[in-house]
Amino acid sequence: TPGILGRYTWLDYDDDDDSPEKACNCSAILRGERQALEQAKLLTLTKDFRKRLSVPDQFYVNATKDCRKFKSSRKYLTFPLSWEEKDFPLAYSMVVHHKVQNFERLLRAIYAPQNIYCIHVDLKASPSVLAAVSAVASCFPNVFLASRRESVVYAGWSRVQADLNCMSELLGTGVAWKYFINLCGQDFPLKTNLEMVRALRALNGANSLESEKMPKEKMWRVQRGVGKVKEPPPFQLPILSGNAYIVVTRGFVRSVLEDRRVLALIEWAKDTFSPDEFLWATVQRMPGVPGSMWASTKYDVSDVYALARLVKWQHHEGERASIHAVYPPCNGIHVRAICVYGVGDLQWMLRQRHLFANKFDTNTDPVAMYYLEKYLRQRALAQIEGKGFKATNVTSGL
Amino acid sequence: TPGILGRYTWLDYDDDDDSPEKACNCSAILRGERQALEQAKLLTLTKDFRKRLSVPDQFYVNATKDCRKFKSSRKYLTFPLSWEEKDFPLAYSMVVHHKVQNFERLLRAIYAPQNIYCIHVDLKASPSVLAAVSAVASCFPNVFLASRRESVVYAGWSRVQADLNCMSELLGTGVAWKYFINLCGQDFPLKTNLEMVRALRALNGANSLESEKMPKEKMWRVQRGVGKVKEPPPFQLPILSGNAYIVVTRGFVRSVLEDRRVLALIEWAKDTFSPDEFLWATVQRMPGVPGSMWASTKYDVSDVYALARLVKWQHHEGERASIHAVYPPCNGIHVRAICVYGVGDLQWMLRQRHLFANKFDTNTDPVAMYYLEKYLRQRALAQIEGKGFKATNVTSGL
Repeated sequence: TPGILGRYTWLDYDDDDDSPEKACNCSAILRGERQALEQAKLLTLTKDFRKRLSVPDQFYVNATKDCRKFKSSRKYLTFPLSWEEKDFPLAYSMVVHHKVQNFERLLRAIYAPQNIYCIHVDLKASPSVLAAVSAVASCFPNVFLASRRESVVYAGWSRVQADLNCMSELLGTGVAWKYFINLCGQDFPLKTNLEMVRALRALNGANSLESEKMPKEKMWRVQRGVGKVKEPPPFQLPILSGNAYIVVTRGFVRSVLEDRRVLALIEWAKDTFSPDEFLWATVQRMPGVPGSMWASTKYDVSDVYALARLVKWQHHEGERASIHAVYPPCNGIHVRAICVYGVGDLQWMLRQRHLFANKFDTNTDPVAMYYLEKYLRQRALAQIEGKGFKATNVTSGL
Repeated sequence: TPGILGRYTWLDYDDDDDSPEKACNCSAILRGERQALEQAKLLTLTKDFRKRLSVPDQFYVNATKDCRKFKSSRKYLTFPLSWEEKDFPLAYSMVVHHKVQNFERLLRAIYAPQNIYCIHVDLKASPSVLAAVSAVASCFPNVFLASRRESVVYAGWSRVQADLNCMSELLGTGVAWKYFINLCGQDFPLKTNLEMVRALRALNGANSLESEKMPKEKMWRVQRGVGKVKEPPPFQLPILSGNAYIVVTRGFVRSVLEDRRVLALIEWAKDTFSPDEFLWATVQRMPGVPGSMWASTKYDVSDVYALARLVKWQHHEGERASIHAVYPPCNGIHVRAICVYGVGDLQWMLRQRHLFANKFDTNTDPVAMYYLEKYLRQRALAQIEGKGFKATNVTSGL
C-alpha cells in the first residue's frame, strides 16, 4: 500500500545512509528466487558494501554525542506504532560481549519506546565495547545497562546470573511490562513488534520455551557437581531439558526471583554444567508458577514449537524425506555446529513461528541481516493503520 | 452487552421451550462456584427436567415434518453470524449409531448454513435411529447422510472407512470448505463456530492432531495382522501414534483419498488393531501432504496440544503436584476408562484450547451439556458485531 508507506517514508531504510541504491528486492529474496539470491551474494563482494561492514566501536561513541541526530539518522522508531503495542510492553535482556554493530542493529530492529531494555555487558568485554554500548544506551530513556555485570563463561552459572541480574532490575523499573524475552548479541528478530505482541497475546498467559523430558545422554549434567556426585534436586522437582532462550510472563520472572523452591533450585544448579539448559525448562513445569505447564511429558514442548528461538544445529539438518532431519540445510556457515544464517535461509526462517533466530553475523553474511532489517521495517510500516492507531492484521508477505 | 443480546433474543435458549425458567447461571458454574454446582446437580433430580431427558426417536420424525417450525423452535442459526465465518466454511463428518438426542443437540450446537455436514449412520443402527437422523438431516440443505454405510466395529477398520466415506462425499459437494473435523455422537463443542474459524486460521494451513512416536507397548498393533506377522509399512513410512480425531485441511483430505502412498498405507492398515489410532498420525508426517509436519520427534504433537479432542483418560487423572498426572480428576463418571463429563468439569474444559470434548451423555449428566449449549449460544450471539458482520474479538467469559 504505497499510500501508507508514503506517509512514513522517513522511517523506511535507504540502502545506504549516504547514497540511496535500488530498493531491497525483498520479495524476490523471500520467494527464494535464485537470481535475486545470487545478486545478493554479489552485493557482499562490492567494495562500498564491505566498507560499511566494519564499524569501529568508537563510531558509536561519536555518533551518539548528538542523540537526536543519531536516532533520526538511524531511523529508530520514536513512537508506538499502535495502541495494541502501547498496551503490551515487552521487557528484554540483551547479553553482549563484542560485535557492537550486531548489537546496535538488533536493538534498532526491536526498539519501541514503550518497551524496556536491560543490556548486560560482560565483565570481560573490552573497554571500547563497554563505552560503545553505554553510549548507545544513553540515548534512550528505556535502555539501561545492568548494574551487576558477570564474567560469562561457556556452560557456567554466570550465563544464568546475567539474565537474573537483568530480570531483577527490569522488575524494579516502573514499566508495566507483560512478557520477558532474553537475547544475546547475535540474535535477530523474525517478527515486527506488533507481530510479537499478537503472538504473545495469543498465548493467553502461558510461557513459551523448550521444556522436555531430560534425555539420557544429558542426565550426567544434573548428577555431577564439581568433583562430587550431586544430591537430588530440592523439593523432588523433576528436572527437564531445554535451552537458554525463553519467552515468559512477568509472573514467571517474579517466581524466579521470589519463589523459595526456585531459589533452592538455583542454589542447587550453581555447580552444574550448562544450567541455563535445564533451569528455565524445569521452572516451567512447577505448580504455582504463572504460565507453567503440568509436568507430564504430554506437556513437553520442543524447540521447534516454542516461540523463543530458531536455531539450526548441524546434526539436525537434512532433507524433508529423511525421518530424522529437523530442518533444511544451512545456507550460511557453521560455527561450533550452529548455522550462521545466509540469505538463502531467509525464506524458510520467515515462515517459522519463532520470534527470534540465532545466529547472525555481519562478518560472515551481512546481507542476510540487511535484508531482514529492511523487510521487517517495511512490514512494520505497512501494519500501521489509519489515524486511530488500529493496526491491520498481519499479512504474510510484502 | 444487553443491547446486542436484545437484538437476537429469539435465538437465545430459554430454559424450557414451553415454560421459561430462570436463566442459565452460566458464569457461576464456569467459575466453579460450589453453590451453583450443587444447584445444578439438584436440577438433574427434578421431575420436569428428567422428563425432558428421554426423547424417543419418533419425536424427531414428527417434529421435522414441518422443517421451518422445527428449525425455529429449536433455534438453529439460519444465517452466518459473520463474514469471517462465511468465508471459512467447515466440513464435518458425524459418526453416529444411537442416542439421537445427543446427536441432534450436537448438530444444533455446531450448525451454520455455510458449513457442510456428512452423517454416517451405522449399518447396525436400529431403524428408528436411522429414521430419526434422516428426518433431521432432511430439514437442512447442507446436512446429508453418507450413502455408503459401514458396520462400525470396535478397533476395526470400519471406523476409518466411515470417515473415508464421508471425506469422499464432502469433497464431491460444491462447498469450498477449508478444514475437516470428524465427530462422533458423544462429542460436544467447546468453542463457537467463530472461535473455531479463528483457531483454524491461526494454524496457517497446518493440520492439528495427535501424532507422536509409537510407544513400545503399542508397536504390536502394526507388527501383527490377522493370524500373521505383518510386512513392513509401504514406502518405509514411519508409523506414528495418535487417535481417531483430526482437524485437517482440505489438502490433507485430498491426499488421503488420492496420494498413492496413503492408498498403499490404507491397504496395509486394514488388518491391524485400531488403525484409526495410527493412520492419521502417520499421514500427518508424510512429505507432500498439505499441512503435515516433518517426521522428526521434535515435531510430535500430544493430545493436549492438538486442537482436535479433549478426552480425560482415568489413568491420566490426578493432581497438579503429581509428576505423571495430565489433568484434574473427572467430575462425572467413567465408562470404559473415559470420563463422561459432569458440570464440575466445565470450568476446566472451557479453559482448554481444544475445539471439541469427549464424552458427554445426557443419560449420565444432562446438565453439563445443557449449560454448555446455553453458554456457547450466548457467546456466539455476543460475538456478533455491528451491522457489517465484523465479529468482535473473543472474550474469555460471559
